[in-house]
Amino acid sequence: MTWLTVDRSQKAPLIRQIYKQLRTKILNGELSAGYRLPSTRQLAEELEVSRNVVLEAYDQLLAEGFLEGRLGAGTFVAEGAYLKKTESNTSYMLEGSFSKDNNTIIDFRSGIPALDLFPRKQWGQLAKRVSIETDHSLFGYDSPEGRIELRTVLSDYLLRTRGVECHPEQLVITTGATQALTLIAKLLISANDKVIIEDPITHEIQTIFQSYGATLLPIRVDKNGMVISQIPYGIKPAFIFVTPSHQFPIGGTLPIQRRIQLIEYARKVDSYIVEDDYDSEFRYEGPSISSLQGLDPNRTIYIGTFSKILSPALRLGYLILPPELVERGRTLKYFSDLHTPSLEQLTLALFIKEGHLEKHIFRMKKIYRKRRDFLKEQLFNEFGDTVKIHGDSTGLHLVAELDGVHFTDNLLSKLHDHGIKVYPVELHTINEGFYSNYIILGFGNLDEVKIAEGVTKFNRILLK
Amino acid sequence: MTWLTVDRSQKAPLIRQIYKQLRTKILNGELSAGYRLPSTRQLAEELEVSRNVVLEAYDQLLAEGFLEGRLGAGTFVAEGAYLKKTESNTSYMLEGSFSKDNNTIIDFRSGIPALDLFPRKQWGQLAKRVSIETDHSLFGYDSPEGRIELRTVLSDYLLRTRGVECHPEQLVITTGATQALTLIAKLLISANDKVIIEDPITHEIQTIFQSYGATLLPIRVDKNGMVISQIPYGIKPAFIFVTPSHQFPIGGTLPIQRRIQLIEYARKVDSYIVEDDYDSEFRYEGPSISSLQGLDPNRTIYIGTFSKILSPALRLGYLILPPELVERGRTLKYFSDLHTPSLEQLTLALFIKEGHLEKHIFRMKKIYRKRRDFLKEQLFNEFGDTVKIHGDSTGLHLVAELDGVHFTDNLLSKLHDHGIKVYPVELHTINEGFYSNYIILGFGNLDEVKIAEGVTKFNRILLK
Repeated sequence: MTWLTVDRSQKAPLIRQIYKQLRTKILNGELSAGYRLPSTRQLAEELEVSRNVVLEAYDQLLAEGFLEGRLGAGTFVAEGAYLKKTESNTSYMLEGSFSKDNNTIIDFRSGIPALDLFPRKQWGQLAKRVSIETDHSLFGYDSPEGRIELRTVLSDYLLRTRGVECHPEQLVITTGATQALTLIAKLLISANDKVIIEDPITHEIQTIFQSYGATLLPIRVDKNGMVISQIPYGIKPAFIFVTPSHQFPIGGTLPIQRRIQLIEYARKVDSYIVEDDYDSEFRYEGPSISSLQGLDPNRTIYIGTFSKILSPALRLGYLILPPELVERGRTLKYFSDLHTPSLEQLTLALFIKEGHLEKHIFRMKKIYRKRRDFLKEQLFNEFGDTVKIHGDSTGLHLVAELDGVHFTDNLLSKLHDHGIKVYPVELHTINEGFYSNYIILGFGNLDEVKIAEGVTKFNRILLK
Repeated sequence: MTWLTVDRSQKAPLIRQIYKQLRTKILNGELSAGYRLPSTRQLAEELEVSRNVVLEAYDQLLAEGFLEGRLGAGTFVAEGAYLKKTESNTSYMLEGSFSKDNNTIIDFRSGIPALDLFPRKQWGQLAKRVSIETDHSLFGYDSPEGRIELRTVLSDYLLRTRGVECHPEQLVITTGATQALTLIAKLLISANDKVIIEDPITHEIQTIFQSYGATLLPIRVDKNGMVISQIPYGIKPAFIFVTPSHQFPIGGTLPIQRRIQLIEYARKVDSYIVEDDYDSEFRYEGPSISSLQGLDPNRTIYIGTFSKILSPALRLGYLILPPELVERGRTLKYFSDLHTPSLEQLTLALFIKEGHLEKHIFRMKKIYRKRRDFLKEQLFNEFGDTVKIHGDSTGLHLVAELDGVHFTDNLLSKLHDHGIKVYPVELHTINEGFYSNYIILGFGNLDEVKIAEGVTKFNRILLK
């Protein structure tokens, strides 16, 4: 039996080494059906290993059906354990398609909070407390709509801070806002349905709705958000999708008159309104704006997220559904991922209940306001009259309109090559060509040093 | 102005009280467009509050468009801020549809690990460490395929313990195995495709595949899992779905001959195999069985989960994809929920890396084996010759076949009324009627006291 070897310098246990060699030889046909293996005693002596080692290797092969033992006759290779080889390409190395930018790049990506200011100590301590102190039923399967502790504090918080009217039973905790969008699409879109949507609007949202068969009916936005008067009658859309607190990306806030027009339209055509409220906690001009949902809770589906006020890494968002949609919403959530991870939900519930969230928002709002003011100052310093700024009253980004610049793919990759990443509004348009000189500048995760360097470099490259 | 009141005993701040009353009166038409509000000074005096309070309430209403200020002329109710009321039904209370059973019920639900033995202290300490010590980039958006730290330790672990061959780049971390199933459905099923599947098989899995348009082609199982020879030729299924390590629910382990037959079939019709490996870490008879995936990694999609070896509350599972499917798999994951929560992924990576997982499995296997042995003993004590036990070599459940019993809905609810919850195999069949006297008994989360009490009661009620 020179065809079996053991190597004591290898990490793999001896049993595994013997098992693997025999298994391979049976699979590839070197040892064919009916071949009689040496006795365990004999093989153990040849390989200078303990007999138990060989016994265990044989046992595993017997259990898996590679071998069969005939009483008193020994151990044989079983029938049907030969597998023809095919060309293998598992050694083919895949490129990470979503590869990380290295740290030298100044990235004006929108919607990223200040990652270095996440309240990591408080969060970590609460996470530990939840894991150690909660009743052990926490570790079982949970309800698709999410933990009642979180839904209760959240509905209080939303009423207090956002004028959202909801009973905890109307809330479905989701694995981030993206999942909330997917659930809405599943809930409301049938093939060939129309969805009325702001234009421009987050590209990913367009993709999600289209992937469920919707035809998008774009309505243009101005500095006050969606121009409601442009919505055509004579159709019944699956829903109307709006970002009324802070239009993405242009940044307008929908005034009460348009809100009422929108609700009246939705009532007339008997359609739902989907309100995506992604960053309105950070409002710098005047007091915070109440939700659209509060005006007609039976017709409005509200999407919220903790990605901007805490961290996108948590993947915690939520849906508020009109009572008639709750049951189906929960079922769809169940078949998506059963429920969102429970320990994080409970950690967040404590974080809100103990007042940390509101303190954190209060603190971050001051920091983001400073960053926003500084970014505006830098833009005016560099670009003077040739820049107009839009949508800076709220949130973690603003839009800069630059006279005579066209953000072509060429220009964008030139900027990228020089270490500046900016995001054109045209990336998010449905009807193209109206925003070719508009750029989205996120400032949440950039300190003043990076903002200053970024804007200066940006201008220098544009001038080249 | 007797129509505005403030109540200092209320929790709501005075600003909010004034704001809300004015807003309501404007929305419902009590105060109509053009109405001139009292000056802030005047209203402050009437209500006996500070002028700033009134100023802030007015400011908010101005910002939201309910009011407009005309220079030197005062503050007026704006046009278009009146919203007609509709019948409201938000006060309608929803019943929790997935209500919890109370604690007095003995629940033989399968697939629930011992919740009181979750390693909560280690997990809590690691979660805290991850939150406090990791680089702050952790708190940003992450890659859809999951953290490389987790994918690396997981691919080592899977090769070592399960004979799974995968490069970390082939892994996609999912929000539980249910999401993995959904992603596979999206990846491989087109409307009217056929899916070859074991019968019986988890009911939820059937629902998921059907909801993506698949027609299920059931193949019966015996004590060795799917009877591969029964698969018809002449069709090209989207994939063949199997639970080869521990068929759910019947419990067979697919022998090597059938595995090879299955792979040869899949090669001939050029189809994928989906291997769901949900609890094979707990193998009580003989050594653990290698994965099917290891035999043909280019043709097999492997689904794994941490729900049984750790806790379902974590919602951590994974997919191993052949290289050609990786790119699309990541994209579909991205549009489902961007990625699975990062902090938990990193906590799990540490948990595996520091050896806690394998220690935990080792410890739990001994406990589950004792529970299984005890359950079998109790069943034989109570039912004697009239019970046959199936599929008890692995995992957290076994199947009991009871002579002359039919688990009708009536009988099941009678059992439930007496505090015993059992799950009939018929719940999971596609072709009905072959398993009416088979019952699934999960034992992972039941201690010996509960098992003894449960089996005794079970028999007593059957005899009634």
